[in-house]
Formats: sequence, C-alpha cells, structure tokens
Amino acid sequence: MKPKTFTQHLAALRRAHAKLINRNNPVDPAWHNGIYERYKNPVITAAHTPLEWRYDLSPRTNPFLLERLGVNATFNAGAIEFNGNICLCVRVEGSDRKSFFAIAESKNGLDHFRFWDEPCLIPATADVDTNIYDLRLTRHEDGWIYGLFCTERRDPAAPPADQSSAIAQCGIVRTKDLRHWQRLPDLRTPSPQQRNVVLHPEYINGQYALYTRPQDGFIDTGGGGGIGWALCDTMEHATTGAETILDPRHYHTISELKNGPGPAPLKTRAGWLHLAHGVRATAAGLRYVLYLFLTDLRDPARLIAKPQGYLIAPVGAERTGDVSNVVFSNGWVARENGTVLIYYASADTRLHVATTTIARLLDYVTHTPPDARHTAASVQQRLALIRANQTLRPPAMPPSPRRKR
Amino acid sequence: MKPKTFTQHLAALRRAHAKLINRNNPVDPAWHNGIYERYKNPVITAAHTPLEWRYDLSPRTNPFLLERLGVNATFNAGAIEFNGNICLCVRVEGSDRKSFFAIAESKNGLDHFRFWDEPCLIPATADVDTNIYDLRLTRHEDGWIYGLFCTERRDPAAPPADQSSAIAQCGIVRTKDLRHWQRLPDLRTPSPQQRNVVLHPEYINGQYALYTRPQDGFIDTGGGGGIGWALCDTMEHATTGAETILDPRHYHTISELKNGPGPAPLKTRAGWLHLAHGVRATAAGLRYVLYLFLTDLRDPARLIAKPQGYLIAPVGAERTGDVSNVVFSNGWVARENGTVLIYYASADTRLHVATTTIARLLDYVTHTPPDARHTAASVQQRLALIRANQTLRPPAMPPSPRRKR
Repeated sequence: MKPKTFTQHLAALRRAHAKLINRNNPVDPAWHNGIYERYKNPVITAAHTPLEWRYDLSPRTNPFLLERLGVNATFNAGAIEFNGNICLCVRVEGSDRKSFFAIAESKNGLDHFRFWDEPCLIPATADVDTNIYDLRLTRHEDGWIYGLFCTERRDPAAPPADQSSAIAQCGIVRTKDLRHWQRLPDLRTPSPQQRNVVLHPEYINGQYALYTRPQDGFIDTGGGGGIGWALCDTMEHATTGAETILDPRHYHTISELKNGPGPAPLKTRAGWLHLAHGVRATAAGLRYVLYLFLTDLRDPARLIAKPQGYLIAPVGAERTGDVSNVVFSNGWVARENGTVLIYYASADTRLHVATTTIARLLDYVTHTPPDARHTAASVQQRLALIRANQTLRPPAMPPSPRRKR
Repeated sequence: MKPKTFTQHLAALRRAHAKLINRNNPVDPAWHNGIYERYKNPVITAAHTPLEWRYDLSPRTNPFLLERLGVNATFNAGAIEFNGNICLCVRVEGSDRKSFFAIAESKNGLDHFRFWDEPCLIPATADVDTNIYDLRLTRHEDGWIYGLFCTERRDPAAPPADQSSAIAQCGIVRTKDLRHWQRLPDLRTPSPQQRNVVLHPEYINGQYALYTRPQDGFIDTGGGGGIGWALCDTMEHATTGAETILDPRHYHTISELKNGPGPAPLKTRAGWLHLAHGVRATAAGLRYVLYLFLTDLRDPARLIAKPQGYLIAPVGAERTGDVSNVVFSNGWVARENGTVLIYYASADTRLHVATTTIARLLDYVTHTPPDARHTAASVQQRLALIRANQTLRPPAMPPSPRRKR
C-alpha cells in the first residue's frame, strides 16, 4: 500500500472530526427510570476539540503531522442558554494537566456541539493561578453573566518533597458575551479553602448570595463540608460573612464523605431546584454521584425537600476514565418550554447530557421519600411502595392456562 | 411521534423486565481453566428486582411513571438448596446506600432467577442496624437455617465531622422457611469488631463452631485478620471463647492485606472445602479475589491443603462497577449429583455463577502446589510442570508447512 501523503492524512483527520461533530445523539433506549433520559453518546469528548488546537497543520514545520499539544479530557462544563443556543463553558484539560475553559455551542444542546475558534482568555490575578476548573455560570439579575471557578495555587507551606498540596479558592470572572472575561478578586470567606462555589442568580435583600463548600484542607473537607450559604455586598471585592450549612453531610448516605453544590439552582413555582454531588469512600477510591434537593422560594437557604439516594450515578462506559466512578455536574439549563438539559461529566473524562422537565424533577424531588437513615426503615419505605402497588388492579398478564374440559 | 401513554410505558417496562428474567444463561465459551465454567450473563442484576419494588405503578399518584425507590446493585448473596430449587439471599442495595436481603429463586441455579414478592423482614435489635449485608446461610444440624451477616452502626466515638466510621459486628437470624426470620442477639467475640463470620454446619463436641475474621477497626483488620475459628455453647446468646487463626495472612500473596471466609464450607470425603476472599492493595484501590482451601474432616480448624494463587479473579465486564476490582462470594451450593454452584459478585454491583464439581475442586485443591513464597521457587514450580510436560509424547500438532519445491 502506498503510504499516505500529509494532505491525505490531514483530509482523513478532518473527515473523522467532521463525522464526530455531526453525529446525531439518540436517546439511549436501554435506560429507563422515568426521571430523565440518557443519551447514547457523550456530547463532548477530547476528540471534539478542533484539530487546529492540537496539530501544527503546516507540512513544512510538521511533516509527520504530529499532535503538538494533546487534549486529555473535556468535562465539568458550565451551561447557559445564549442567543437561543446552548453554550457550554467546558473544562478542557491538556495532556499537561493544565485545565482551561472553552465555549462549545449547539442548537439543541444534545449534539453537534462545536467549539468556538479560540479558548476563553481568563486573566490571572497577581497571585497567578496554577490551575483553574469547574466554572459555574450564573446570569445574575445585576445584568452580568458570572463565572465562579476553582483556582489552585501551590500551598506555600508545603515542604519541597510535597509537589501536590495546593490551596483551593474561588476565582471570579464576569462577561456579557462569553468572549470577554473580566477577572475580579478571588472570593474571601471565613473558611481556609473553598471549592464548588456557586452564585445565586437573584439578590437577597440587595446582597449577592453564594453557595459554598467550606473545607479545611485541599482534599479533605475536614470539620467543614456540607453545602453552605453566605452573603456579600459586592462581587467586585467579594467577601462573605458567616457561612451557614444548608445541606450537611449525613452518616451512611451517598454523601457521607463530601458534598458540594453543582450548577446554580433553577427557579420553579415550588422552590429552588438544586443539583449537587455526593461522595463516599470505597475500597476502590471515591464514588461521586449527583443528587437533587429543593429550597424555599423566599428563603433559598432553607431546605424543604431532599429525596433519598442519588439522581445520577455512572453506568456502563461512564464508570471508567481518568478518575473512575465519578459523575459531576456544574451546568444545567431550563428552557422556556420546561425542558431541562443536565450536563454531567463521567470519570473526569467526557461530558454527557441527560434530559428531563421541571415538572418531572419537581415530582421526583417532592414524592421520593427522604433518607430513612437505617436499613429497617428503608425496607419499610419500600414495603409501603410494594403494598400500594399490590392494591392496584392486576396488570395485564398473559391469561393463565385454562383447565381442560 | 405520538408520546406514549402511561399504560404503553408500563407495558414496555414489563416486557423488558420479563425478557431479562426469562433470558437463558449459556456457558461462556471464551473461558477455560477446567476448574470451573463461567457464564455469559450475570445471574442477578439490579434490573432483575421487581418493578413493583421501584416504581409507583398507579397512574393517579405517579402520572410520569417515575422510579420512586431506585435499586443500585444486587450482589453478595447467601445460597441454599431449598425444596429442590436454588434460593439466594441477595444483598440488595437501594440508591440510598441501605442494603437489605431478598430471596431470589431459580430451578437450575443458572438463570430465570425471580425475586419473591417482598424483601426479607429482618427484625432490628435494640441497637438499630444502620446497614446489614453479606448474609451467609448455614443449614445447621440443630434443624435451623441460620443467617449470619454484617451489621454496621455508626461509631459512637466518631467526631461529628466523621460521617463514615462504623462498628461492624456479626448479626444473627434463623429461619425454617426463608420467610420468617428470628433475630438473635449479635455475636460477641474477643475481637473489637467482626465481619465475614460464618457458622459451621455441624456441632463440634456439642458446641457451635464459627469462622470469624477478627479486626481491630472498621476497615483495617489491624493486628488481627486471618480466618479465625471459635466455639460457643449457644446461638441464642452467642459468645465465643478465644479465636484461633486457621488461615493467616502471608507476605506477598493474594491475601497479604486482608482475608476472610466466604460461605459455609462444603463437606467432602477429603475434608471441608472452604471458599474465601483475599485482598491486596494497589494504586487503584483494593483488589479482591477468591481462593480455596481444605481443612481436616475431624478437626475443621486444621488446614490441610491450600493451593497457591486465586480460584476466581474478575475478568472482562466483571472488573468494573461501584467498587471495581472486586469479586466476593458468600454463597455456594453442592447438589446431590456433585455439581457445585458458586455465586460470586463482581465490583459490588451484580451477581454471577460459576459451576464445577466436588471432584474437580478436590483435584484442584490437592494438586495445585502451595504458595512458594519467592519468585525463584515459584519458577521452579512452573519448570517442574513444563519439564514433566516435555516428557510426554508430543501432542497431535498441525504439520509444519512444507517448503515449496
């Protein structure tokens, strides 16, 4: 076989890339829980990033057509409806482990996501970020679109032999067009470190309200943990007062080790709908799942409904990746017709969508019983369900064989 | 496309469920080690649980046909032959992380497992169990069927920030019909905590005999560990004397970190056959495999044969799940014709069967050499095998291709 030329190689790459971007994403027919639909393909993978971001496409300087700057993963995306389309602010991780943000846009939010020409340029502060990730987008009633993200810098107290320890804090940018990002000073809270901080979309008595996840150390939440709530006067030098915990961790639940807010909550007639992540430890590392809860419309810091268990856990190919056994979400969109698009990443590797409606999520969040705390009580919940079902008219079954006459 | 009605949705769910339950389970032709057969499908998955246990099936109270109480996993099952059928006492885990027990029954033990109408009702003790799991069934010569299981309660000494630490002990129930379960006081042993306790099926000098797995902490076996043996006078207030270790852990083996008994041993002409699990630590967490050993018929606490290596390790899709890299067994059945059904769970997610015979297991356990402890000695074991094979008449081989003339 004649070896391919540079041009032939590149044409093949372009065809494969176009095929991936243009692939339709049907509902996964094997999945049913009624609460949401899963889809057959991830919506964004590392292979979705433009070839121009990875290859030097000049045959003169790159005759072997080598990838110059690999992309390792695309995950944990903020989400927003923008000019009628769905825009995701994706966490793109290079093969150098540094993350950056990039906008990918789609008409229906399910497939055909296409990255804008260039990644987002997020200005650094005087204390340069080593890494930034997991941006939450909030369209605030002050007129700005805010992006709150985690920024990490090396822990100055770490001994030279420790090349891992970092300080995690909440970085803040704002924009009007998702192209020009104004960096504001990092958030200051009473907690030593912060991750997973989210801006509430409305003023609370003229103040900005933040969902926080206080933690004592870089990984361990320590004595902290739980989903917090704090107020501040301005986002331009954001300093919160005391954090109150609105959703603490509980023993022997899906979030016994850690929990944290996902995207900004959705406003519904029944309350603020929150998507969050819960973490437990297993013999094979941590397991991250997603759960839902509802807070009061007038007092968003007051939890009013929290179903037992998880809403989304990894299934099938979602289970495995750079950090296996993890689903995470920091982006969802409620469209005007009541559809909800939930963007969740699996295994810190790729991004998926699940679809549902506000009506179904409210039904789920208000009719699924709360955690029973003990196995016997949990069995009683299930028995109540089983026995109620037993009282229903028997379902259509094949007729039993008639006795011979 | 016209949206489906509630009735159409439910009918589709029922068809999919019936198809799963009625699916045949052929031998996996890709597997061969002679010692046991593997099968193509798991025998029980979360999707095998009845729809009535998960969905509210009333269109009036659940118009969207949402799953109300999810089932996350079905694994680690006790096993028994009962009225000629195979009955498994399955660990069912809800999406709330609480486990409970439920009987699933099959004629051949390989497929068509069907859950009984309702889960087992296991009465709590005064010190209410937070979670119960991994029940071992023993048909004791006193006439009862005993179920010994792990019960966990929050560690009362744990600080509020620690929502994970628990105390693990051995809970005890007994039954005659697998429907009515009498709870007895938890086992008391000299060890601070217990997991994986198994009742020996025969009296030993008029006493009950227990296989134990002493441990100092909730997860760490600490200075303890190994498979223990202890006697007690009654199961009604079971308190054992001293535990002696019949199968300790050994350096650089498949069970260097932890080991523990599986199901109750099988009585054979050559001794008591034991299935156990061994654990080592890896960069991706713990790895659980299953191994076999033989103890003396008259003195079941005396180990008389223990092959090197493992009997069952996860392969293919078994490798991945909620807790990857784990196989675990607490149930097997020897039928009258010599067939042995081994029920093992993979990745704390789903349950499989492997089939073999008493004759093959005895051959395996007595003819596989013991652990050589060092690589050079292990190579010598293999060389002896290779050189013995070299003395055999060459097997029929395809003729080597002749040179063209």
